[in-house]
Amino acid sequence: MKTYTYKKSSALFKRAAQVIPCGIYGHMSPSPYVPAMNYPFYAARAKGAKFWDVDGNEYIDYMCAYGPMVLGYNHPGVDAAAQKQLKSCNCVTEPAPVMVELAEYLVDLIEIADWAFFAKNGGDVTSYAIMVARAATGRKKIVLVRGGYHGVAPWAQAPGHPGVIEEDHANIVYVDWNDIESFERAISENRGQIAGFMATPYHHPTFDDSAFPAEGYWQKIEALCNKEGIVLIIDDVRCGFRIDMAGSAKYFGFKPDLACYCKAIANGYPISALVGTEALKTYAAKVFHTGSYWFSAEPMAAALATLKELKRINAPALMNKKGKKLLDGLVDIARTHGYTLKVSGMPSMPYLRITDDESLMLHQDWCGEATRRGAFFTSHHNWFVSTAHTDADIKKTWNIADDAFKAVKKQYG
Amino acid sequence: MKTYTYKKSSALFKRAAQVIPCGIYGHMSPSPYVPAMNYPFYAARAKGAKFWDVDGNEYIDYMCAYGPMVLGYNHPGVDAAAQKQLKSCNCVTEPAPVMVELAEYLVDLIEIADWAFFAKNGGDVTSYAIMVARAATGRKKIVLVRGGYHGVAPWAQAPGHPGVIEEDHANIVYVDWNDIESFERAISENRGQIAGFMATPYHHPTFDDSAFPAEGYWQKIEALCNKEGIVLIIDDVRCGFRIDMAGSAKYFGFKPDLACYCKAIANGYPISALVGTEALKTYAAKVFHTGSYWFSAEPMAAALATLKELKRINAPALMNKKGKKLLDGLVDIARTHGYTLKVSGMPSMPYLRITDDESLMLHQDWCGEATRRGAFFTSHHNWFVSTAHTDADIKKTWNIADDAFKAVKKQYG
Repeated sequence: MKTYTYKKSSALFKRAAQVIPCGIYGHMSPSPYVPAMNYPFYAARAKGAKFWDVDGNEYIDYMCAYGPMVLGYNHPGVDAAAQKQLKSCNCVTEPAPVMVELAEYLVDLIEIADWAFFAKNGGDVTSYAIMVARAATGRKKIVLVRGGYHGVAPWAQAPGHPGVIEEDHANIVYVDWNDIESFERAISENRGQIAGFMATPYHHPTFDDSAFPAEGYWQKIEALCNKEGIVLIIDDVRCGFRIDMAGSAKYFGFKPDLACYCKAIANGYPISALVGTEALKTYAAKVFHTGSYWFSAEPMAAALATLKELKRINAPALMNKKGKKLLDGLVDIARTHGYTLKVSGMPSMPYLRITDDESLMLHQDWCGEATRRGAFFTSHHNWFVSTAHTDADIKKTWNIADDAFKAVKKQYG
Repeated sequence: MKTYTYKKSSALFKRAAQVIPCGIYGHMSPSPYVPAMNYPFYAARAKGAKFWDVDGNEYIDYMCAYGPMVLGYNHPGVDAAAQKQLKSCNCVTEPAPVMVELAEYLVDLIEIADWAFFAKNGGDVTSYAIMVARAATGRKKIVLVRGGYHGVAPWAQAPGHPGVIEEDHANIVYVDWNDIESFERAISENRGQIAGFMATPYHHPTFDDSAFPAEGYWQKIEALCNKEGIVLIIDDVRCGFRIDMAGSAKYFGFKPDLACYCKAIANGYPISALVGTEALKTYAAKVFHTGSYWFSAEPMAAALATLKELKRINAPALMNKKGKKLLDGLVDIARTHGYTLKVSGMPSMPYLRITDDESLMLHQDWCGEATRRGAFFTSHHNWFVSTAHTDADIKKTWNIADDAFKAVKKQYG
């Protein structure tokens, strides 16, 4: 199996490095791979579950744009709905009627939703959620799970990151995932001061295995929040619509007061949403939160089309079935090479780790070898599966993974 | 002249109020007009300088989506460039080459730009700018002008707003616009602690006249920032590309270290940008800042097409010429009715105020009367002019304004 070359990607990246900090920044920064320039940096085309880089190399994509792609790139139904709206109006002085339709649809769809609010970034709605919690309770403190990701606002970044100052965390209290005692301790040490608790439906950190909630964890959290008047906020940005169409909290059997959505909501069109309970609507209305593009109609039309299609085909079940098939095969293939591939989290957004090398370098190299053969694997972040991944894609991926194991075996011995 | 009716808008807004906080929130919230339901709440279609509401009423639009619309709604050239990119790829696992082209174009275009960084909201880049300033200086405090607008992040909102807590302003120091002494005082009271000074190129608050920089103001600010090692940040989100294609700072004769763009940059496609000097590039690279849709290629292609077209037609000069013609006429018409219409700010984004009523209610009613006749005027926020406004639009606007003056004259006597 031939591995790809990256002449055009490398040349473009070198140009980028002249005029863009990091060349490519943030979660898409390919920095670990830069020394070798042996990596696809730029996409030229995308369709279904695949994208092609600027050197013409084809990839079965297991990152799905880090989540937004859920029905396949350039999905005809979603694109047609978006195009129809775009031709009428998109970013105008007033919102379009589709804003009301989308809010009504989300209120019907998401178990806890009595209202919906739209923005652009996932971080727009996680930040809004904590502001609503503070407005509603008159309290300041927000409890977060250590290692959770809620965007790039200074309060959401880990203390000590460049540009983040200690005052940004003056009212952030960290607890450990699945640790009810640490939450109870946070409550007793900050009695009457906690406005909200925010966490993802299950714990999916980078550089570590995903962890499902322990039996009864969310139910105990919900009971404590209700008792103490703490606003329970679910950050469903990453899991949303890949676990349960009614919200990931429904799947895990609890009822938050606020839930944050983004990523899979519109198949790549830029929109995020906060939904919440009737009791918080007045406070949501009091907090001033807005943006230049937040009323744009095209992404709302795309979201409505995406959600309807996801529901029609029962996409969470479908993606988890596809993911399970893929992962069972990969685990078996690893075993034939003498490796243990550990899979955690939902099969629709699995975290993978070859356990035989604690440094994770072997795992990283395996992902690199697979990528250079046409299966885009990311090493220290959960993957994403879409409804567009076919059985043929999965079979081809198994072959590539097999060859990639041979390559790392040769390298690591 | 018949005034419009709003049966469908009102019905939709009532539905919206059930499922969306405020019905319509943020800067588009029509709350002052809600009691009468006598206002267009929803757009059905837009083209050129006009939009049509859901009741079929036509408006010459002087808000231009609050700024993003600069070449006219559904501009064929911009839309074609966006469509072409969309058909290849938009929101994918990797950025597209257009990201590099756009960064190179901005570096050539904006006087101070050695690099460019892209996000979605104007607020994404104002927040990033203060993080870069903090990372670069190792200092915490940010100096802002009282009454300036830099987005909805808690640090950017006025203290005391719902959801904003006092710690959000622990490191914000306010000075008055055009008041060098207040800036010098801020420096001496916070010696060695100020990371950055952020302001708009000229002061354009809501509910008050716009104010240009006093002679030598920016030059003194620049000199003080250089002397004290303070990062000078221009928030060019609203003024950008409506004053000078090379940046509004160029027009006012000073050189900031960082400049924030959004709104007019892509004719309504969702993108914002921070540009900066070489000296700050390393620090910009250190701050972690990213978002799910920040690498999407369609808005980047739209931005490139928009900027090239704005430059080709010298759009700032054109918009200011059109704006001046419109405003001179409106001032004359006001005079014939015995009113003084005060105009401030750039003609491409003017603030208007009928000075004969300090409560501003007469002014608000005049804007409402004009809107209900087909010229969309906003009362307490600056307007926006686009290159798509025609002489015929301006003449029709004068007739509408004349009739609106008659209506308020009748009401107020």
